[in-house]
Amino acid sequence: MSVVVRKAIESDCQGILDLITELAVYEKMEDQVKMKVETLREDGFGNEKYFQCFVAENQENGSSKLIGYVLYYYIYSTWEGKCIYMEDLYVSPEYRGRGIGSKLMGSVCKTAVEKKCARVHFAVLGWNKPSIDYYKRQDAIDLTEEEDWHLFRLTGSAIEKMAAKCDL
Amino acid sequence: MSVVVRKAIESDCQGILDLITELAVYEKMEDQVKMKVETLREDGFGNEKYFQCFVAENQENGSSKLIGYVLYYYIYSTWEGKCIYMEDLYVSPEYRGRGIGSKLMGSVCKTAVEKKCARVHFAVLGWNKPSIDYYKRQDAIDLTEEEDWHLFRLTGSAIEKMAAKCDL
Repeated sequence: MSVVVRKAIESDCQGILDLITELAVYEKMEDQVKMKVETLREDGFGNEKYFQCFVAENQENGSSKLIGYVLYYYIYSTWEGKCIYMEDLYVSPEYRGRGIGSKLMGSVCKTAVEKKCARVHFAVLGWNKPSIDYYKRQDAIDLTEEEDWHLFRLTGSAIEKMAAKCDL
Repeated sequence: MSVVVRKAIESDCQGILDLITELAVYEKMEDQVKMKVETLREDGFGNEKYFQCFVAENQENGSSKLIGYVLYYYIYSTWEGKCIYMEDLYVSPEYRGRGIGSKLMGSVCKTAVEKKCARVHFAVLGWNKPSIDYYKRQDAIDLTEEEDWHLFRLTGSAIEKMAAKCDL
């Protein structure tokens, strides 16, 4: 087994989508995955780039397969400026415990250092103890626990109702 | 009093920074504001744009003053694609109760509709009841309450330690 971490390229999109779906199954929310490979290609590798991605590729017996990925983008803090949001970090179960997740997350953190981003943010489900323990070992702070930050979402008709209040 | 909501322009940056500081004082975290007006100008109106902004301007007695703002950017969901994150929404206390906040948030939601964004996300402090009540009246979902999402952060030396694990 020989696993390499590298920047994602457009032809990785089907492999990334397979892993996105694997992660959603683990999070017990696979019914919420509406992503298509064409959308991933356009939004990550088209004219306007909405995300960036590193992948972990396993080369074995003459064939290669994506077995992990990390997807991130820039966000903005009005207190500290440019920051990075790590949307997904995932390694297939049979490849865990070999430091591949740390290399993926390390690649995002190296980008944060290079781009002078003061923070790397991400969200974790409260019941996902193994992940929370892992992130805390990396000195991550649980802002929901420490400062009581709650994440909110508007969708569909709520967005439309609110949009109607705009007078531009 | 005549309040107009419009897209922010570069010369609004000092007024926006004054409001960013007002909001941080309200959130009891003003010691965390490290933003400078030059950084805001460069990151919002330079070659690479890290955020977008609408402002509310009050015109009274021949002079005008910014009294509210909303700052947002695009984020990416691997389940639903392009989304918007509303980083800050703020209206100075003496101008509240006139629907100015709703017009600002409405401008962001109109953008979300135009750009086909499935979600508008934002974070609120748990003790900030007036804001939570307001957002819930707009049919926002508290994802921390409903799905137990926790927000995490890496900073400074934790980012550097993690970056050292990258072998790119």
